[in-house]
Amino acid sequence: MGTISHHLSLSILCSVDKNARKPNKQKLHCVKINGTKSSNNVQLLSQDNNNNHVIAISPCVDENVSVFEQQNRQNIPTKKQLIDPYRQGIVIEDGVGYRQTVVVRSYEVGPDKTTTIESILNLLQETALNHVWMSGLLSDGFGATHGMMKNNLIWVVSRMQVQVDHYPIWGEVIEIDTWVGASGKNGMRRDWQLRSQATGLVFARATSTWVMMNEKTRRLSKIPDEVRAEIAPWFIKKQAIKDEIPEKIHKLDSNATYVHSDLKPKRSDLDMNHHVNNVKYVGWMLETIPDEFMEKHQLSDMILEYRRECGSSDVVQSLCEPQQYEGLLKTGIDQQYNNKHNHIGLNGNSFSSEILERKGLLGCLNIGPFSFTHLLHVKGELKNEEIVRGKTLWKKKINSAPFHS
Amino acid sequence: MGTISHHLSLSILCSVDKNARKPNKQKLHCVKINGTKSSNNVQLLSQDNNNNHVIAISPCVDENVSVFEQQNRQNIPTKKQLIDPYRQGIVIEDGVGYRQTVVVRSYEVGPDKTTTIESILNLLQETALNHVWMSGLLSDGFGATHGMMKNNLIWVVSRMQVQVDHYPIWGEVIEIDTWVGASGKNGMRRDWQLRSQATGLVFARATSTWVMMNEKTRRLSKIPDEVRAEIAPWFIKKQAIKDEIPEKIHKLDSNATYVHSDLKPKRSDLDMNHHVNNVKYVGWMLETIPDEFMEKHQLSDMILEYRRECGSSDVVQSLCEPQQYEGLLKTGIDQQYNNKHNHIGLNGNSFSSEILERKGLLGCLNIGPFSFTHLLHVKGELKNEEIVRGKTLWKKKINSAPFHS
Repeated sequence: MGTISHHLSLSILCSVDKNARKPNKQKLHCVKINGTKSSNNVQLLSQDNNNNHVIAISPCVDENVSVFEQQNRQNIPTKKQLIDPYRQGIVIEDGVGYRQTVVVRSYEVGPDKTTTIESILNLLQETALNHVWMSGLLSDGFGATHGMMKNNLIWVVSRMQVQVDHYPIWGEVIEIDTWVGASGKNGMRRDWQLRSQATGLVFARATSTWVMMNEKTRRLSKIPDEVRAEIAPWFIKKQAIKDEIPEKIHKLDSNATYVHSDLKPKRSDLDMNHHVNNVKYVGWMLETIPDEFMEKHQLSDMILEYRRECGSSDVVQSLCEPQQYEGLLKTGIDQQYNNKHNHIGLNGNSFSSEILERKGLLGCLNIGPFSFTHLLHVKGELKNEEIVRGKTLWKKKINSAPFHS
Repeated sequence: MGTISHHLSLSILCSVDKNARKPNKQKLHCVKINGTKSSNNVQLLSQDNNNNHVIAISPCVDENVSVFEQQNRQNIPTKKQLIDPYRQGIVIEDGVGYRQTVVVRSYEVGPDKTTTIESILNLLQETALNHVWMSGLLSDGFGATHGMMKNNLIWVVSRMQVQVDHYPIWGEVIEIDTWVGASGKNGMRRDWQLRSQATGLVFARATSTWVMMNEKTRRLSKIPDEVRAEIAPWFIKKQAIKDEIPEKIHKLDSNATYVHSDLKPKRSDLDMNHHVNNVKYVGWMLETIPDEFMEKHQLSDMILEYRRECGSSDVVQSLCEPQQYEGLLKTGIDQQYNNKHNHIGLNGNSFSSEILERKGLLGCLNIGPFSFTHLLHVKGELKNEEIVRGKTLWKKKINSAPFHS
């Protein structure tokens, strides 16, 4: 019975719309797709003046949506675009950067009406992909270029840092800029800046490092010349966050103060790459932090070091350790950060005094910054496999942050 | 120390921007906020020609963002707007309906690149709130009007139905229309239609019923005349889904086939009303359905009947029961639905034959529609309290759904 129900024979009627708001409309008058699922082969026919012309033959049909239909509905540009009216995106930075205006939606904020860190990370991912979209380089994959697709390469993030000074609130109009640059010989750096659209005040900055992985062998790859030729013209040297000597994030073990075990990905946690989305990692990391701390503090800086992808069948453990204050003092970076961002630090009411005493932190109330070290790993029979190490810095929530003088 | 750190004394400088893209900019030249947290009283002063005028006195300051700052950053209109360029929203239906154009974002789709039902529900909530936003009626609350705020009333949803014929895909441009109407004497109906922007093809329809609740007594309320005067002019009779004799959703008990227990809301599950968001309910309902069924089927119709709000400390149990085929045949509605929507139904490979045999369903492969009954309740010491009853209808996933003839 499977053969018949999978047999495809359909017509798609596409009227050509000359409306200026639809600049990327494909110039197809009428297409007809003929094929069978079993033959793995679909013809795209253009029906013009009552004649059929074979335009292309596709090697595969997606389980749910056919390749041609998907292309038609997604409308991915094949040439560089300067403006995207639907996404409210424009090209900036002399033609190589991307800016998108977005309104903070009702489901992107928490009970306090400020954007959640997960929503900010989602918007960073979205604008990065829309940047590639505008470039005309986007293939069918999750941000991969045509050259990458040809070489079976996918992007893998190896490091990410996000600094949030002020959280946007429900209904606020924000602008997100993003651009890319070189990172060593075989990496790419992607940066973002998130601002108030009304005042230009910078709300957040982020930087990330990406490398290429062979989708089949799962091994890291050099950037092929073909791909370098695609992406290198987009590289600029601008940095959203200045380079600092990266502090080593030490590896936690099962003695960590907070441990959440048996975390299992749900269907809805998987992204288009069929892996647990990075944003979910952050959710798992932050869940271990006690509610009473979260209520009084807001995340101001987060560094993530990715080690391994998490698949849908992995069972994850999330470890979290409040950082010793002595440790913070020793690292010049933290002290520097503290001075620059005017952290207010730990409030006596906001954290269990028992924990503080155990960690030798009782004496450092209101000094801060306060930080946590994080680890997500997959518990294995022989050894545990690290997914991501993280460090988070926090400041006390205050009234009216962005407009305080 | 609390008193001093909470003492507010700040100035906000608002330049008047005559740019046409900012039609709702408040006409304040300079405001000064004076007050203390403990006094619960903040004065808003307008500083014009070097004179201070008291514009308003606010009764409260939010823990994180002050009321005035929030108003300034959210920029909620106080008069009806016909167009919202940032949200890409316009007024339709002779001035009483709302249409918003949105692009499906990368994190709103699942591994198969089609929008998740949770994302669709989020977009329905978002457009409903933006409709109220455009109306000039929105107060500070979660969709509440000024009159509702004055009477301590909030909106509570009592019923929701969503029908999805085709799921939008990543990058697709869609239009969502929404409008309201009367529902009985003291209810409001809100409907939606979701379409392809390019072709006009209807992807989904939804309808919902809302009543008012006193925020303090938690009892349902009649619509006060003051509030009726605000909202009644927006009511129209158009319906996205035609009224049908509602089939009773029977109450499941602990003998249900699938049971997920100990579901606990996370911080990120709470919305601006400080309750578990409705969309989370749907996630809990659908998690109980086996993966092998979900992979081959898509949700085509969902009815939710809300009984009670779920708070942050509740521990929830999710029950789910595949519906007897005999039961389906008996209900004319289902049969009618089946005929109208051309359901393909259950595939032999996609569901445990053991379960099917137990449920007497082995004989009805490929007949469909296939449905589940759902219940979320809070396990109490004396009795269980129902949160929501639900029914879901499913069809087999097929290739190229929207363009099939």
